[in-house]
Amino acid sequence: MAELRKDPVTGRWVIISTTRGKRPNHFNHEVKDMGDPSACPFCPGNESKTPPEISSLRRDSSGPNSPGWQIRVIPNKYPALGIDEPLTKKGVGMYDLMAGFGAHEVVIETPDHHKAIHDLSIEEIKEVLTVYQNRLEDLHRDVRFRYVLIFKNEGPQAGATLSHSHSQIIATPVTPIRVKEELQGAERYFHHKERCLYCDVMHQEKDFGIRIVYENDYYISFCPFASRFPFELIFLPKYHQMDFYASRSHLHEMAQAFKITLDKLSLALNKPQYNYIIHTAPNRFSRRGYWHTIQEDFHWHIEIMPRLTKVAGFEWGSGFYINPTPPEDAAKYLREISVNA
Amino acid sequence: MAELRKDPVTGRWVIISTTRGKRPNHFNHEVKDMGDPSACPFCPGNESKTPPEISSLRRDSSGPNSPGWQIRVIPNKYPALGIDEPLTKKGVGMYDLMAGFGAHEVVIETPDHHKAIHDLSIEEIKEVLTVYQNRLEDLHRDVRFRYVLIFKNEGPQAGATLSHSHSQIIATPVTPIRVKEELQGAERYFHHKERCLYCDVMHQEKDFGIRIVYENDYYISFCPFASRFPFELIFLPKYHQMDFYASRSHLHEMAQAFKITLDKLSLALNKPQYNYIIHTAPNRFSRRGYWHTIQEDFHWHIEIMPRLTKVAGFEWGSGFYINPTPPEDAAKYLREISVNA
Repeated sequence: MAELRKDPVTGRWVIISTTRGKRPNHFNHEVKDMGDPSACPFCPGNESKTPPEISSLRRDSSGPNSPGWQIRVIPNKYPALGIDEPLTKKGVGMYDLMAGFGAHEVVIETPDHHKAIHDLSIEEIKEVLTVYQNRLEDLHRDVRFRYVLIFKNEGPQAGATLSHSHSQIIATPVTPIRVKEELQGAERYFHHKERCLYCDVMHQEKDFGIRIVYENDYYISFCPFASRFPFELIFLPKYHQMDFYASRSHLHEMAQAFKITLDKLSLALNKPQYNYIIHTAPNRFSRRGYWHTIQEDFHWHIEIMPRLTKVAGFEWGSGFYINPTPPEDAAKYLREISVNA
Repeated sequence: MAELRKDPVTGRWVIISTTRGKRPNHFNHEVKDMGDPSACPFCPGNESKTPPEISSLRRDSSGPNSPGWQIRVIPNKYPALGIDEPLTKKGVGMYDLMAGFGAHEVVIETPDHHKAIHDLSIEEIKEVLTVYQNRLEDLHRDVRFRYVLIFKNEGPQAGATLSHSHSQIIATPVTPIRVKEELQGAERYFHHKERCLYCDVMHQEKDFGIRIVYENDYYISFCPFASRFPFELIFLPKYHQMDFYASRSHLHEMAQAFKITLDKLSLALNKPQYNYIIHTAPNRFSRRGYWHTIQEDFHWHIEIMPRLTKVAGFEWGSGFYINPTPPEDAAKYLREISVNA
C-alpha cells in the first residue's frame, strides 16, 4: 500500500503511496465541500463513516463509535503508512527501500463542526493536549516506531481536506530528517556548552523581550529570530523538558498559553490557514533507535506556521526562506492584541 | 533593506526583508492581474517599468532598454538581497546575523507575453540556457558570492507574481542548506566509492529503464526513485560535469531534451504550475568558500517540481514527503506522450 524510499543523495525518506496511485487527471478534482455537517465524517452521528475509534473522551456513558464523545481518535481512513505492513528493509540496486510500516491516526478535537481549536475553552484544549500526550506515550510503547509526529493542518492551503477541526498523528520507523537536524543542532550545542540550546534561546528571548508574544509562569510563545514565515511562532515550556508527554504537571497553563497564542494569531490575521507541529524527542524505547538522546539534549516545542506566502523555487532549491515580515514586527503586533482567556 | 539570520538549531539561513515589512492586512491583497500585456513590465515597450537591464540578447541593432530584445536580464525591482549592502557579519547575543548582501536578477525569456518556456523553439531555449550560463559564470567572478541559484516559478501556486515567462537568479554570500545536503551526500559517496553519485544513479536508471522520461545522446530526464512530488523530474547531463556553465559543447541537445521534457509535462498535466531549480557546484572562486569541491564530487542537474499537491504539516514537521503517484507510473505516463521537437 505504501513504500518508504530513501533519497540516495540527501538521505531524505519519502512515502510513495502505491494504493493511491494518482493519475494526471486526478489532481484537478481535489476540492471537497466542507460546509455540510450531515456529510461530515467527523460529526456526531456519522461515526460509522470512519474506521472504528482507537480511543475517545466521553463525559457520559455512551459507548464507542456512537455520539456522546468530546474528543475522538480514529485511524486515518486513507493512511500514509500502515500498521499491518511488515518492518522490512531491502536494497533495490543502490537504493534503500522499506515497506510502508507505520501508524496514521486522526484526533477529532471537538464534536462541533464549526469550532476551530482556539474557539474551545481552556479546559477543552487541555483535554486535546492530554489526548495528544496519551497517544504519543502509547505509540512509543511500540519499539518499531522511532518517531511520532503530531501535527495540524488548518485550512485547505495548509493541506486540510476536511474542515471539521482535527489533528493527525503519524508514527514512522525512521527518524525524520528535519527532526534529525534539530536533534543534531541541540546535541552539538550541549556538547559545547553543557546546556540546553532551547533553554538558552528562551532565556535570551526573555532578556530581549522584542519577539515575545505571550507567557505565563510555565509556558511561552515567541516569533523565532530566524522565522521562515511571516507570523511564525514557537511555543515551549519555560522549564526543561525533552518529552512532550512528560509535561503533565502544568497542563492548565499549557492550554491557557496555547489558546491565547492561537487566539492572537486568529485575530491578527483574520482566521489564517496554518500548520502546527509538535517536535518532541524520538522514541528512546525503539530497539534500533539512532538517537540515544539524553535528558538535556532536546526540549519539546510546537512550531506554528501561518500559510500566508507561497513557497517557491528559491525556497525549494535552497532551503533559504524569504520572510517579508520581521519577527519583531509580528511579535509586537500579536502582543498588542488583547484576548480574554 | 534585508538581513540574513541563521537559525541557531539547524543552521538554516533566512532572509528577513525589512523593507517589505508586511503587516497582517497585506497578505490578503496579493492577486495581480496578469492578463494585460500593456500593463506588463516584462513586455516590449514597457522597458522603463523595470530597472535598467544587465544584459540582453538582441538580433537587431536596437539599443539597451528599448524594444527589439529576445531575452532580457534585469535586476529584480524588489530584490530579496541587495548588491549595495556590505558583506558584514555580527552576533546578536547568541544569534548570527549578516547584512542582506547578494544579487537578485530576473531573466525575461521571451518578448511574447503569452508563451511559456516550453512553447519556445529549441533554438530559443538554447539561448535562454546560454543566458543562464553566462549570468552564472559572471556572478561567480564576484568572490563574495558563495552560491548562485537559478530557478523558475511557473504559475501563482508556484510563487509567480507575474505571468510573463521569466526565471530568477539569486546569488547568496552563504551556501544554502539544501545545496549543502546534496554536496555532503555526493562527497560522502565519492569518498567511499571514488565515483560520482549522480553518474551512478543515472547509469542505474538507464539499466532499470522504468523511471526514464526522455533521453538523447547527451542529456536525460527521469522521475527520481524517491520523488517527493507527483511527476517530479530530474534533468542532467549523461556525461560528468560539475558546473552548469561549463556544459557548453552540446547545447542543442540540452535544449532539445529540456524542451521535450517540459512539453511532456505540460501535455500530461494540462499546463501545470511548477518550479524548476538548477543545482550546480558552489562558487569555488569564493575567498571564504566552505566547499572545496573537487571535479568528481558533484554533478549539475535541474530539479523540476510540479505543484500538484499541498505541502502540509507532516512535510513541514518531518521533511518526509507523501507522494501519491509512484515515479514509475509518472514516468510511464510521460514517456508515452509523444511530442514533436
